[in-house]
Amino acid sequence: MIVLVRPQLAENIGTVARAMANGGLFHLRLVAPRDGWPQDRAWRTASGADAILEAAQLFPDVPSAVADCHRVFATCPRPRHIVVPLRTARAAAEDLREINGRALRAAVLFGPERAGLENDDVACADTLVRYPLNPAHMSLNLAQAVMILAYEWWTAAEPTPPRQLQTHATKVATKGQLEGFLDRLVAELDASGFLEPAHKRPGMVRNLRHWFERGEVTEQELRTLHGVVTELSRGRMRRGRPEED
Amino acid sequence: MIVLVRPQLAENIGTVARAMANGGLFHLRLVAPRDGWPQDRAWRTASGADAILEAAQLFPDVPSAVADCHRVFATCPRPRHIVVPLRTARAAAEDLREINGRALRAAVLFGPERAGLENDDVACADTLVRYPLNPAHMSLNLAQAVMILAYEWWTAAEPTPPRQLQTHATKVATKGQLEGFLDRLVAELDASGFLEPAHKRPGMVRNLRHWFERGEVTEQELRTLHGVVTELSRGRMRRGRPEED
Repeated sequence: MIVLVRPQLAENIGTVARAMANGGLFHLRLVAPRDGWPQDRAWRTASGADAILEAAQLFPDVPSAVADCHRVFATCPRPRHIVVPLRTARAAAEDLREINGRALRAAVLFGPERAGLENDDVACADTLVRYPLNPAHMSLNLAQAVMILAYEWWTAAEPTPPRQLQTHATKVATKGQLEGFLDRLVAELDASGFLEPAHKRPGMVRNLRHWFERGEVTEQELRTLHGVVTELSRGRMRRGRPEED
Repeated sequence: MIVLVRPQLAENIGTVARAMANGGLFHLRLVAPRDGWPQDRAWRTASGADAILEAAQLFPDVPSAVADCHRVFATCPRPRHIVVPLRTARAAAEDLREINGRALRAAVLFGPERAGLENDDVACADTLVRYPLNPAHMSLNLAQAVMILAYEWWTAAEPTPPRQLQTHATKVATKGQLEGFLDRLVAELDASGFLEPAHKRPGMVRNLRHWFERGEVTEQELRTLHGVVTELSRGRMRRGRPEED
């Protein structure tokens, strides 16, 4: 649950909803928005995340906004003179997933655009969240701050492997198909005299093989490469052997 | 190095610079910005990240923008019919740190606001980056996409422990100070009759101790608690024992 405390601009409430939707967050609460609620301008910047805005709940103050929550996190860039658990955005997202998994309700407080949360707001939180970012230029706007938390929330449960090959809708060529192409290429290069003198031929062929074995090759790419060899060989046949030019 | 390919709105170039600054990224290249370059409007949204805009370099096309780079990543939400290494934003940031550590130059391409990168742009990349986000509402704006990458870039080298206690500018009370308070509290409660009947007293005292031992307590908080006990006991003394009310 995202709680915007005294947000100033309705446009920012809309971009927050957009950011939430990207990260699969739905519940939005507004504490005393400066210009009242609802505001058309929020819908204009929400980029389709209308359902979040329509379900948003309005509260007069932080205590009433978090009254039914079991845990309250507060995003808080500045140090406070209190002892309270502090989380990076990533660890906070993991905690929020864990809390959610126990069917408890957690709120994350975000302060107004300019000033951030006041001490009284922070005193309602049991955990602080701080974003590790460049201290020389720490200037997140409200929607960016929500975006990073929403991104971490989604990522904390995201099964996508961090590294993979993009192979959607394409067929990777078999080693046999690749070999067929290499055989043909080498035969053409033999015919052209490119692989001479003979004592250098094994190393040159190995270099070529290494190049084409570097990664997966698709069937479509192999077809294109066959076409390239056909076209280049045709030129050589038209022109005759290179040394006769 | 962030490369914005055919960005449309100068405002977005400014917010991208702001996002970059948050993540400690500095080098910005612009490929054929729609409205030309420079544009005052970019400076107005950069929130002080002026140095990034002033150092931004202008290029007519993607190949010239990446000509001096050793690696090119492309952010690309849609599947393409090619075989190419694919990274999450987090893994891409780790790769970029590793590449940077070898003193090689890497570029990350971001497409125009509406359409994203074209196939010809993507063909200039050796690695694709995809953000794992809610597929039901995947709608990052340009600055948010850069923000997440910049955040991951910073986080990939950030030593902040994910979980810690906020203890800045405050002194945690010793166990002896805490014990002194508990002794006094229990004495006052004994005097008030709160800890009767006697057979329940040990469990009640244990519960109280457990409550106060739950986390670190600061010296300031202990001073406040002593004051609370003093004040409440004074009330009791004024009013006499509760059963006499």
